[in-house]
This record gives sequence, C-alpha cells and structure tokens, in this order.
Amino acid sequence: MIDANDMNAGAAASQERVAPFNQRFDFGSYAETRRFLDQLADMSKREDYYPDVSFGKTYANISIDGAGQAVLRERNSSFIGNMQALATQVGV
Amino acid sequence: MIDANDMNAGAAASQERVAPFNQRFDFGSYAETRRFLDQLADMSKREDYYPDVSFGKTYANISIDGAGQAVLRERNSSFIGNMQALATQVGV
Repeated sequence: MIDANDMNAGAAASQERVAPFNQRFDFGSYAETRRFLDQLADMSKREDYYPDVSFGKTYANISIDGAGQAVLRERNSSFIGNMQALATQVGV
Repeated sequence: MIDANDMNAGAAASQERVAPFNQRFDFGSYAETRRFLDQLADMSKREDYYPDVSFGKTYANISIDGAGQAVLRERNSSFIGNMQALATQVGV
C-alpha cells in the first residue's frame, strides 16, 4: 500500500501529466481470476471507484488514467496498493 | 442467437480467416454492468469458454478471436447469441 502512495506522490510531483497506471496480474486458474475480480468489485463499490479492467481466463489487467489517479490521490486512497495486495492473496 | 450463428457461418464460408468478434455493451449503471458480468461468468463456466472482456463502470467489451470463434462453432455453441440476449435483459 505504501508503494502505491509513493508512486502516486512521485507522479504528482513530476508535473501535471501523469502516465496511465497499468498493471497485469496473472493467475493460476479461472477460479483465482474470478476471486480477484469479485473482490476488486467489492473494493470498487466500497470506494466508489471503478478502474478499467480487461480480463481473460487467467489474467486481469487494470488501467487507471491520470484523472483516475488524481481522484484516488485526493481521497488519500490506497486502492492501488489494496488491489496489489489482493492479487497476491488470491494467487499470482 | 440466430444472428450469431449466421455471422459465424458467414465468416467461416468467406475463407479460413475470421475477423475478431468485438462487441461493446453499454449499461445504465454499475449494478447492471456487474449483473451482466456475473451472468456472463456463469455462462463461461457452463460452456467452459472464456472470451476476453474489458469493462469499466458502465460498459463491457467482449472480444473473441478467430480461434475462439472456431471453438464455439465446432461446439455448435450459441454463446454469442446468449451473451447478446443477456445484455438486453440486463439493461442496455
């Protein structure tokens, strides 16, 4: 979670433009992918924040554009860090 | 469902190469998007077929490449038609 905050802070400091955040998570099975997506959906609902998500049978790719990152930063959200922790718990 | 079969048949007839299937569905709310994705996941499990899916808060985009379409065609599957019907039921 600290990583995500650091990363966001870094991006903010380095001027107005923020590169899109993209991260791919690979899973060992469809069941793991589903578990990740379901818990990510719960997290989205709780935080009222909905990243762009692509997924197939055994992977998910999460994208958060600059505007999205700004929203999360304003809220002091640890959405990205929590999502990374979730992926680790689920499998990966 | 008949549309999807016709489309596949047409694509198959027009030589070996099949253009990727891509369809975007827009929804009125995140709840509708979730309902669509959850039911699509159930359908995937039932048919053991997993398309590539991208989604955001109020849309989902489904991609099925040529190989995927061939698999569905061999199985005589109405996956695409069922998915389109599902999107209509859920909202759109």
